[in-house]
Amino acid sequence: MSDLKTRFLEVYSVLKSELLNDPAFEFTDDSRQWVERMLDYNVPGGKLNRGLSVIDSYKLLKEGKELSDDEIFLSSALGWCIEWLQAYFLVLDDIMDSSHTRRGQPCWFRLPKVGMIAVNDGILLRNHIPRILKKHFRQKPYYVDLLDLFNEVEFQTASGQMIDLITTLVGEKDLSKYSLPIHRRIVQYKTAYYSFYLPVACALLMSGEDLEKHTNVKDILIEMGTYFQVQDDYLDCFGAPEVIGKIGTDIEDFKCSWLVVKALELSNEEQKKFLHENYGKDDPASVAKVKELYNTLKLQDVFAEYESKSYDKLIKFIEAHPSQAVQAVLKSFLGKIYKRQK
Amino acid sequence: MSDLKTRFLEVYSVLKSELLNDPAFEFTDDSRQWVERMLDYNVPGGKLNRGLSVIDSYKLLKEGKELSDDEIFLSSALGWCIEWLQAYFLVLDDIMDSSHTRRGQPCWFRLPKVGMIAVNDGILLRNHIPRILKKHFRQKPYYVDLLDLFNEVEFQTASGQMIDLITTLVGEKDLSKYSLPIHRRIVQYKTAYYSFYLPVACALLMSGEDLEKHTNVKDILIEMGTYFQVQDDYLDCFGAPEVIGKIGTDIEDFKCSWLVVKALELSNEEQKKFLHENYGKDDPASVAKVKELYNTLKLQDVFAEYESKSYDKLIKFIEAHPSQAVQAVLKSFLGKIYKRQK
Repeated sequence: MSDLKTRFLEVYSVLKSELLNDPAFEFTDDSRQWVERMLDYNVPGGKLNRGLSVIDSYKLLKEGKELSDDEIFLSSALGWCIEWLQAYFLVLDDIMDSSHTRRGQPCWFRLPKVGMIAVNDGILLRNHIPRILKKHFRQKPYYVDLLDLFNEVEFQTASGQMIDLITTLVGEKDLSKYSLPIHRRIVQYKTAYYSFYLPVACALLMSGEDLEKHTNVKDILIEMGTYFQVQDDYLDCFGAPEVIGKIGTDIEDFKCSWLVVKALELSNEEQKKFLHENYGKDDPASVAKVKELYNTLKLQDVFAEYESKSYDKLIKFIEAHPSQAVQAVLKSFLGKIYKRQK
Repeated sequence: MSDLKTRFLEVYSVLKSELLNDPAFEFTDDSRQWVERMLDYNVPGGKLNRGLSVIDSYKLLKEGKELSDDEIFLSSALGWCIEWLQAYFLVLDDIMDSSHTRRGQPCWFRLPKVGMIAVNDGILLRNHIPRILKKHFRQKPYYVDLLDLFNEVEFQTASGQMIDLITTLVGEKDLSKYSLPIHRRIVQYKTAYYSFYLPVACALLMSGEDLEKHTNVKDILIEMGTYFQVQDDYLDCFGAPEVIGKIGTDIEDFKCSWLVVKALELSNEEQKKFLHENYGKDDPASVAKVKELYNTLKLQDVFAEYESKSYDKLIKFIEAHPSQAVQAVLKSFLGKIYKRQK
């Protein structure tokens, strides 16, 4: 494990112990144990990319100057706030989607002793974020901007989740609701803001920057987050299962994937009818038929073109940015995802 | 309807329309309609006591000076934030408790088109609060204190809900977990902070007060909120159903009520065994037996004594407060609940 990740995980232990001794609440022994177990189960088990990228970005913004212990701690704490936010969304999403597993273990609400208490646990995870921010950032000049930032991004994520839910679930399996503008909106709000914009925005605030002056950075990161999710949709169908670590089920699950949206756009009437008949069916024959149509429509080529155009556009935007340090942050993000196979 | 309540409801329409046109999110027609229906179903249908009490308290703090239109709007907006907070808790609580009705209509998640989307709707309700605060209070000197206040009170409420859930549900029906200290903690955190302290704290902030200097006001209101919930527990069993508007089921539901906690405290070994055998059973015979024990233990007298002692203590605390205006606020709250029959 890298030295940075080790230090990042040490900060988790500090934050957890502070939360378990928060003077704003009188814990019972049972409730303190409950929260500790809930945190360990849901917060640190992911890839931690979002959290770690706050420290990385902050480092790049400091243009190679060594970070002090305090700076490492604070940028890690902000990184953990994003991981807490993610844990909160995942705990509740799994309930809404009736999922079974998450990160290789049963979903939290599936544990027999947990059940619907998981709803309140999700709420608690969310409430830990302002506790962490207040404890470590209350005296910083950018404290109020941090609160506003987390509030706005959470609002956008929940709103994106809403259009995903009402498009995918209500009036069930109506493919005619799927379109590129809807797909873009779901992806942008549900994923891009909190996964791409939020880590960089945290690093910018810590560096003393005014976010109002960085709307172009936001636009670039949202574009990058959208591209990232399109890759995700693509890999679900065309990625190698042994590389991505799972077998995609977007077709069976009637997901509003970039692939089906593109397929609808490129289909003639007959092909459209064919899609309507076979998309979202659980049997392997229907899935194979959908994949066959994807091949007929040459979606692999369409994706390759989308990928290279996105890349060119992003590079052009990034290089137009006046600050070399900001360019370095953005290129670092892009470098991590361009042509990824998993 | 009183003039104040009419104006309060007008502010709801304004806030709703602002939220439906929030530039931080690109609504689709479907999602805008969804949110409007969700808000109308869940936010304005209660008694609005908590919301209205912000305006009342603010008025009393201004010592009778006429409020400007702006002051009425802003204190109403804060009142609505509390109503939004309440709606958020209720939507999610109903899911966790598998409830069927709320405020005389089916619970939101029980509507066929809603189901588990209600989890995200709860989240959206919660997210509307910082949107309202940012739009109307961003430039106020007390903006950051408002954010901190709502964050802290939400954290305390969710923490109280947690001990309620893990005490009542985990290791099911274990009466030995119930005690006065646990009951006090659940009530204080789950109800008193947001129902009693929060409205007054909002009014104090709007009046330019520093909440750090008003910890005694907080203590008094928490005490009052606790007394209010004890009344609630009492009326559930001993209130007149035609007055309180429902038939209490705390005994059947194995609730951690003040009555059962007091009964446990006052029981001899035999009576305790009897309670363990009959509390939380659905059949009318067991319920009647529990009520009989409550009568044997003279819980009506015990409550009457608790009530008059609470009142005396509260009055003494209130009259020790240096500000007449603050005294008036606290006495107004106490006057509304002392010896209430519903």
